[in-house]
Amino acid sequence: MGRTSTARERLLDAACALVLERGYTAVGVAEICARADVKKGSFYHFFPSKQALTVEAVNAHWAAQRPSWTALLAAPGPGEDRLRGLFEQQAAAQRAARAEHGSVHGCLFGNLALEVSGRDEVVQARLAEIFDEQIDLVHAALPGRSRDTARAVLAQLEGMVLFAKLSDDPSLLDGLWDRTALLLRA
Amino acid sequence: MGRTSTARERLLDAACALVLERGYTAVGVAEICARADVKKGSFYHFFPSKQALTVEAVNAHWAAQRPSWTALLAAPGPGEDRLRGLFEQQAAAQRAARAEHGSVHGCLFGNLALEVSGRDEVVQARLAEIFDEQIDLVHAALPGRSRDTARAVLAQLEGMVLFAKLSDDPSLLDGLWDRTALLLRA
Repeated sequence: MGRTSTARERLLDAACALVLERGYTAVGVAEICARADVKKGSFYHFFPSKQALTVEAVNAHWAAQRPSWTALLAAPGPGEDRLRGLFEQQAAAQRAARAEHGSVHGCLFGNLALEVSGRDEVVQARLAEIFDEQIDLVHAALPGRSRDTARAVLAQLEGMVLFAKLSDDPSLLDGLWDRTALLLRA
Repeated sequence: MGRTSTARERLLDAACALVLERGYTAVGVAEICARADVKKGSFYHFFPSKQALTVEAVNAHWAAQRPSWTALLAAPGPGEDRLRGLFEQQAAAQRAARAEHGSVHGCLFGNLALEVSGRDEVVQARLAEIFDEQIDLVHAALPGRSRDTARAVLAQLEGMVLFAKLSDDPSLLDGLWDRTALLLRA
């Protein structure tokens, strides 16, 4: 039982890590199985396809991140301070990933959004739901603001993470919130 | 002579269109040749590799876009008005691409930046140069502003184009500049 359940977890972890490192298209089932130390024959016991595994890996990644989003955005104090905490945590995560893996990996959801949109409707639809949930969480921390403003706040995060990944330089995210906060000066 | 030069052009056009539709990894040399109506044996007469073709396709795409960037950003009037013109043109291009191709393709440079960074140093380095040039052009239109502010302006564009592509909805780019302009209220 333990063996069975950890194999599924290992496949999810391996898929998440490999897709962050190399993207969705470049990574195959055989490579995911090798990284997870799971026999390829067992893969299809757990997941019908790489697409299905990717949706579950995306779900697991968001399930792991979501509690810190809700905790940071539900902290006491003004909404802007709570958003600052979230943005500082996102910048710290990119710095930590670079220190651990040797390069800025960016945002799993953003990377996949640009790679699969128009090409894999199932993964695309799930990513759209997760970003909608993120926009809703940010919107809830900004009473009196529009949902478009909440989306613009997240667009600034995704756009700057894109530049940090392209330049492999997490310091581009220093001061991210101070600039993003200007979007709330309407 | 005409035959030779148009084959190279057709390969560049096909690479650009296919990478916008489906991404870098998913598209192979054979498919590019088929779209370009060029024999695969001739491909290597023009380009040593898919990587080399991609760099040239990226260069051609920027060479085609750059004149409108410089013209719009050198127009008379306040810098903010010129940037508004550029952003409105970018939004119109996404709407036009959706009308023509059936889906929002996003930004070739942004799509590639997230797909190849950490995996193809040559394409990544060229994309970083192009984005640096874009940041410089925006920065030159904003006297007295920092280069970080110019990068934040482009991050807002790239982030919102990501959401427009994920949602296949170019209307998300309506009002893009009005929100982005808030980043200049420092």
